[in-house]
Amino acid sequence: MALLVQKFGGTSVGDPDRMRNVADYIARTVRRGNQVVIVISAMGKETDELLRLAREVSGTRPGREMDMLVTAGERKAMALLCMALADLGIEAESFTGSQAGFLTDTTHMDAKILDVRPDRIRASLDAGRVPVVGGAQGVSTAKDVTFLGRGGSDTTAVALAHALGADMCELYTDVSGVFTTDPRLVDNARKMEQISFDELLEMTANGCPKPAMRSVEYARNHGVDLHVRSAFTWEHGTLVTKEDPNMEQAIVSSVVSDTDEAKITIEGVADRPGIAAHLFRGLADAGANVDMIVQNTSLEGHTDISFTVPKADVPNVRVVCESLVEELGARGVHADTAVARVSVIGAGMKSHPGVAATVFETLADNDINIEMISTSAIRISCVVREPQTERAVQVLHAAFELDKGPKLVD
Amino acid sequence: MALLVQKFGGTSVGDPDRMRNVADYIARTVRRGNQVVIVISAMGKETDELLRLAREVSGTRPGREMDMLVTAGERKAMALLCMALADLGIEAESFTGSQAGFLTDTTHMDAKILDVRPDRIRASLDAGRVPVVGGAQGVSTAKDVTFLGRGGSDTTAVALAHALGADMCELYTDVSGVFTTDPRLVDNARKMEQISFDELLEMTANGCPKPAMRSVEYARNHGVDLHVRSAFTWEHGTLVTKEDPNMEQAIVSSVVSDTDEAKITIEGVADRPGIAAHLFRGLADAGANVDMIVQNTSLEGHTDISFTVPKADVPNVRVVCESLVEELGARGVHADTAVARVSVIGAGMKSHPGVAATVFETLADNDINIEMISTSAIRISCVVREPQTERAVQVLHAAFELDKGPKLVD
Repeated sequence: MALLVQKFGGTSVGDPDRMRNVADYIARTVRRGNQVVIVISAMGKETDELLRLAREVSGTRPGREMDMLVTAGERKAMALLCMALADLGIEAESFTGSQAGFLTDTTHMDAKILDVRPDRIRASLDAGRVPVVGGAQGVSTAKDVTFLGRGGSDTTAVALAHALGADMCELYTDVSGVFTTDPRLVDNARKMEQISFDELLEMTANGCPKPAMRSVEYARNHGVDLHVRSAFTWEHGTLVTKEDPNMEQAIVSSVVSDTDEAKITIEGVADRPGIAAHLFRGLADAGANVDMIVQNTSLEGHTDISFTVPKADVPNVRVVCESLVEELGARGVHADTAVARVSVIGAGMKSHPGVAATVFETLADNDINIEMISTSAIRISCVVREPQTERAVQVLHAAFELDKGPKLVD
Repeated sequence: MALLVQKFGGTSVGDPDRMRNVADYIARTVRRGNQVVIVISAMGKETDELLRLAREVSGTRPGREMDMLVTAGERKAMALLCMALADLGIEAESFTGSQAGFLTDTTHMDAKILDVRPDRIRASLDAGRVPVVGGAQGVSTAKDVTFLGRGGSDTTAVALAHALGADMCELYTDVSGVFTTDPRLVDNARKMEQISFDELLEMTANGCPKPAMRSVEYARNHGVDLHVRSAFTWEHGTLVTKEDPNMEQAIVSSVVSDTDEAKITIEGVADRPGIAAHLFRGLADAGANVDMIVQNTSLEGHTDISFTVPKADVPNVRVVCESLVEELGARGVHADTAVARVSVIGAGMKSHPGVAATVFETLADNDINIEMISTSAIRISCVVREPQTERAVQVLHAAFELDKGPKLVD
């Protein structure tokens, strides 16, 4: 008998039929002798619809009230799932984030969990019931309803699994696991059996949409094993665990791409100490989310500084940069939105210095020009022209033979 | 400066435009220097839609989960109204029933208020804000979310007005007040300036749809003055207060009708002590809501017993009665759904015994046969054939000259 936290949401509970399918699956898990705690997010596109409604009603949308509004979505979903479970003879009880013991700070729309005190969840399990918890919800230190933000239900599931000492946190989604790359881009993308927290974090930070990055960080920091799997095919998905030094380690595990960033270049910046600090402090103060930064070698006392930001931030960033052009002694600001970032990720590359060379050679052999490079211990990212994204992913996936299963470090 | 509780709901907040209209009105009330507490129920037909969704998902719908589900409706409405108020520069804060201090029993879907401890509402008012409270909600002694039932938002408003010592509880609706009769039936139906709790209670119990009866009982029992008025025309509506012995008193204030009841007749019941008790105990145990009861004079040791029940209860009631026919020594059971109840109401009739005679004469003069009669101190009800309802209301409204303003008791 295991204690499992299972998280469902979105299209997997998008209509009454899907809701009954999920209830049926949960009932089977219970009947096999497991204790199960469910975390559920809003049905289908309901959160988007609530946000649209708010925009229609008012131009002023205080965070406290937005949180009250959007948490109505999970409330509906959790009550309906309990009814569907009752129909199958499974006693279930819904709990709001507050009832489930999620204490958060007072940052509305993006609250941080301060503590999880799942007394009522434990009592519900002890009574032989299935607790169904509304995802992404909590109660603040000011006793107000809070929302953990989009994707916050994954975090709820992980935090609850940790607080309850669950054996596994299962994140059910519309994909069947974590793939070596996006199967829409590469035909023979392979579902991974297992991946480390750090690798998955690099993937989610670099273009892999699921699960939510924050939940993976929480899982890594608290050692909560994850199982990312499908609520449609129900097949075994991908286990996410901490890196085991005794475990055989894939050199490269995946290739991801991200077309959501733009490249900003400030040309001819004076090459003086403190110039970069001044620029990036200005951008940080404006709330710009700067990612890769590259500074070219100085030529005659001037240099070009390039960095990437989310495309949505470009107008804002351009204003900040243009206001600094004179102070920086720069020639001008150039924004390029036709770029993409392609990343190769693998915990094994730490001990295999040849990986970067293979990446650069492979792209060069395919006439794909690299405009920027950044690396971490387990990732190499290259900025390329956007139309070449798909090709870059395909040739890198092939170069590391990711379709054939993990190439292990000796 | 007055402290007002204003209740809105349904079509009056049915879409974003209506929501902004209501916010604008509240803002004007605040800017005139009043303190205002808002109670809001779900937007438009949302509660119906949530109930439909529950039926689609499951045949088993535990009360606890139904309450969690339907309270999502008010949650949306109250958050959106706060945003619309914020847009107008009015600081507003939404509160769930639990946050507003509504402690209830554990009867899900029809919870009773045990106590109201509006500490957070007072603090919100003291801070110069407009508290917006979700209607018909509470938290049970078992710490679960409870729903006070359909129409429960009126009760929330009245209970909150009482707990806060408000100067007035304003119930905004889609009608402009309480009328001497249904304006769809009688052209010159007149909106009443004022009416007593008892009169309004008799009206709501006998076919007048608004406000919810339970809220009027609460208001009467706790002496909370009500103002029933329109959220569309915003004109002055009808005041509902306790009967003032010094106040001039209308003899008859209104005529109402109800076509929602059926007449059940049990023929040839043995005329023995305890027979009626046996019958109505059986009906009560079956949950039938028996209203008017008439027993004819005994003829040769047998009598006919007639009573009215809601039409929806007829199949159930018929089964109970037929099972008792033998025990009762009766000849048979007859159900007649083509009936209607027409009632004349007025606090002044207590001291004017001639009212009943006028009612009977008026109906007789118009060839309307009376099948059953029941009376209270301030009401005379007659069961007539359903197709004659409209005519009966018209002639009674005319006979008491209700279009001309209250005919006062000397």
